Amino acid sequence: MDLHGAFHVYDTTLRDGAQQEGLNLSVADKLSIARQLDDLGVGYIEGGWPGSNPKDTEFFRRAGQELELRHAKLAAFGATRRAGVRAADDPLVAALRDSGAGVVTLVAKSHDRHVELALRTTLEENLAMVCDTVTHLREEGQTVFLDAEHFFDGYRGNRAYALEVLRTAAEAGAEVVALCDTNGGMLPDWVSDVVLDVIESTGARVGIHAHNDSGCAVANSLAAVAAGATHVQGCINGYGERTGNADLVTVVANLELKLDRNVLPPGLLRDATRIAHAVAEVTNVPPASRQPYVGTSAFAHKAGLHASAIKVDPNLYQHMDPVGVGNDMRLLVSDMAGRASIELKGRELGYDLSDDRELVTRVTARVKEMEQNGHTFEAADASFELLLAEEVEGTRPSYFDVESWRVITETRPDGEAISEATVKLRAEGVRYVVTGEGNGPVNALDAALREAIGQAFPEVAKFELIDYKVRILDQGHGTDAITRVLIETTDGESSWVTVGVGANVIEASWGALVDGLTFGLRRHHR
Amino acid sequence: MDLHGAFHVYDTTLRDGAQQEGLNLSVADKLSIARQLDDLGVGYIEGGWPGSNPKDTEFFRRAGQELELRHAKLAAFGATRRAGVRAADDPLVAALRDSGAGVVTLVAKSHDRHVELALRTTLEENLAMVCDTVTHLREEGQTVFLDAEHFFDGYRGNRAYALEVLRTAAEAGAEVVALCDTNGGMLPDWVSDVVLDVIESTGARVGIHAHNDSGCAVANSLAAVAAGATHVQGCINGYGERTGNADLVTVVANLELKLDRNVLPPGLLRDATRIAHAVAEVTNVPPASRQPYVGTSAFAHKAGLHASAIKVDPNLYQHMDPVGVGNDMRLLVSDMAGRASIELKGRELGYDLSDDRELVTRVTARVKEMEQNGHTFEAADASFELLLAEEVEGTRPSYFDVESWRVITETRPDGEAISEATVKLRAEGVRYVVTGEGNGPVNALDAALREAIGQAFPEVAKFELIDYKVRILDQGHGTDAITRVLIETTDGESSWVTVGVGANVIEASWGALVDGLTFGLRRHHR
Repeated sequence: MDLHGAFHVYDTTLRDGAQQEGLNLSVADKLSIARQLDDLGVGYIEGGWPGSNPKDTEFFRRAGQELELRHAKLAAFGATRRAGVRAADDPLVAALRDSGAGVVTLVAKSHDRHVELALRTTLEENLAMVCDTVTHLREEGQTVFLDAEHFFDGYRGNRAYALEVLRTAAEAGAEVVALCDTNGGMLPDWVSDVVLDVIESTGARVGIHAHNDSGCAVANSLAAVAAGATHVQGCINGYGERTGNADLVTVVANLELKLDRNVLPPGLLRDATRIAHAVAEVTNVPPASRQPYVGTSAFAHKAGLHASAIKVDPNLYQHMDPVGVGNDMRLLVSDMAGRASIELKGRELGYDLSDDRELVTRVTARVKEMEQNGHTFEAADASFELLLAEEVEGTRPSYFDVESWRVITETRPDGEAISEATVKLRAEGVRYVVTGEGNGPVNALDAALREAIGQAFPEVAKFELIDYKVRILDQGHGTDAITRVLIETTDGESSWVTVGVGANVIEASWGALVDGLTFGLRRHHR
Repeated sequence: MDLHGAFHVYDTTLRDGAQQEGLNLSVADKLSIARQLDDLGVGYIEGGWPGSNPKDTEFFRRAGQELELRHAKLAAFGATRRAGVRAADDPLVAALRDSGAGVVTLVAKSHDRHVELALRTTLEENLAMVCDTVTHLREEGQTVFLDAEHFFDGYRGNRAYALEVLRTAAEAGAEVVALCDTNGGMLPDWVSDVVLDVIESTGARVGIHAHNDSGCAVANSLAAVAAGATHVQGCINGYGERTGNADLVTVVANLELKLDRNVLPPGLLRDATRIAHAVAEVTNVPPASRQPYVGTSAFAHKAGLHASAIKVDPNLYQHMDPVGVGNDMRLLVSDMAGRASIELKGRELGYDLSDDRELVTRVTARVKEMEQNGHTFEAADASFELLLAEEVEGTRPSYFDVESWRVITETRPDGEAISEATVKLRAEGVRYVVTGEGNGPVNALDAALREAIGQAFPEVAKFELIDYKVRILDQGHGTDAITRVLIETTDGESSWVTVGVGANVIEASWGALVDGLTFGLRRHHR
């Protein structure tokens, strides 16, 4: 069944997903995630609530200038007008209308008790708010979706009123009424019954917005679709408040690969694993290895007993071909999977390794050993390319020899802290001793290192460190654990990521800094 | 409906859960987890495969001597006899019979292709293996459950044969035939159809064993129960191979609290949160904060908009009372926080702020201002409590005055980096100058700070830093950005989280360290 177009895959990572405890997204983060979601081919990206806070307003402003979406439309989320004013006079409604998104997802109360207790207005006025706001936005040329908040609880308490809210919105021109299991406690059979009743009673186009509080967010979404819903909301990696929203990739993969519904543009689901992990890098929430479809363990087998049968027919041991979501079968006792991906990655970087089995074996072994020690090459292509170059060419690319480095951070009399680094190195036959200052130890080391090398290689002046990420790998030991640092460097034209690892965070950062400069110099000297 | 007794809650954490990548359980770990599972009131604890490896054999030996189970029975897991021998002559069958458990869960192939490819025998011999092994164990006084491996895939490929395996086992005396979704790709409606057919076609008592590869393990288990299954297998915390097994607590909580089936002894579910976390301590797998029912975020709310309504009726905002699973509602103090949520949060921490409007206004304003500067109090309850104490009591709780600090990180001749910190401070009228070493600058500062303060307050010796998190807030500026540090400190009994912010990561860490020690000292001095 080809539903793509007639079916909405609606992502709310940037709005509802951002409600997750500990998750804080800058405007740059949101823009970066929106690009990834567009690569996945979702139909709608809910960007936030313009007018409710400066960050979301800024997001929509910059999105209009900077985002070039190929598949998705942006949606602005916001509430119906306040009680007692006209929608046309409500500045928050105006902010939705003027966001530039073109699609407005209006959240409305459909649970009578919430209208009275949280909204503090009458049931009649709430209906008027829905009708008036939808009508106004439609007249202004907006597409309108309605998010019926607390719908399932409201339906249980006062079915007639909950349905009346939907009917009012649909009659005023809302294209979809999304039923929100805001508190997240529904089970699939219940969702199914309610969706069937809503469609029969209102004739409206129905959407589903599920949370995972009963561990059934995915199944509830599927149950709604089976009952006739044609609009599914969710978040990448299942981000969201409390137990999270429905994991959009899992829902979509089930629809596409198991239920034969084509809800994304063809072929894009094959990037799901890469995209899910790339978003996790931006949010800095460690990806769950057991995540369905895209988790690093999702197709990992302790082969043991069944290794020979797996070789004969891997599909006897997996529920689908992991290629469909861009993941890989991993045999935890063998290095078969490793070799193949090293070869592939080499090809990606311009090295044809297919003729040199011994080289591939050597690189695979080194990658395995280094990943065991905490490195990751998946995000750090530049460090991987340096390793590959070292194995192919026999020596590691190098443009300078470091003698020693030191960095001091101390409080100043005014209470602020300052960092000062001294780097001693040789480049092009000259010894440099340079001291740099910075507002942190790595910042100071970076300044000293680039100043020293810049005297031998002036092109370094163009290099700039644009991102710095730290992850503690061995939770439970505090500052005493292994630290992984990822650094992104740019030369103004492109950027590259390097990785460093160490018990000492400064040592790890130093490794990533040196790789970053080496990679940049190598690129300019080839 | 009271099913307890007539319904089996069957835990397989110690066998199938232990297949999880990176999870390794010693015999002592397994005994400890078995005690926790018994506290939860599960009916059966599958302990492992005696005879297949020395560790599992040892587990059953020690369990017989050391475990005093009040609710659960132990089950030994193992395969049907080998092809071509009598069950009575197979040493692996003997190991099951003699494990002392009294219950044997026999795994049998029910998928024709697996019989031929993995077992390498005929379909007829496989049936004979099932019949002979079940018969022998029943004659020897064992209760027998059958795990029909790859059942759902087998049913799809050769329904008649898959059903024949079940019929054979039931006729030979197996009490339950558990349908295993070994590859984990099923969806709830499919499970429901198959279970209905199995019950109608065989008359056997049916169990379900679900994996989470399609994100539906919980829903699949519930679908099976709705279709007539009366035996549910799962693992605590959803441990297991690939994406894990059905999370047993989530399944049971849904059955008990939402579907009104009493499947555990009365009252025991109220310990679920404690037990799930205690098991996570043993496995050393960090608990997922978003886990349904028992996760630390499962009942956490970014109150903001709705705080006033939450005060009136918390049940408007949660799908069930968290007390039912031993969890708590938590209000997160965030930049969306208004006065009402500050008041509620204060109450949670033991401060009644309802009479002092001016104080609440002041605290709200400070929280907002500090969150604008990069603080987050959402995860850092201890820093929030210090701020609250400062506003309530007029001065910030303080046990020492810092004069200055300095930390140096440098390369040693062998290439490794070492950090050394010097801290100067006054406590209890005495000036301390202490130098500490560490494998990173924060580690060294922590060592120096705790040694200095420990001389004035010996209880500091019990404090330990157990988690350290860094987040760069303003992406796009690399090491030049604002840094937020979260630190978790423990005194061996409980733990608390503090936050520090600064342009300099070391300065941010210092703030969080000082708050962490201050909070701990305050708790011990009240």
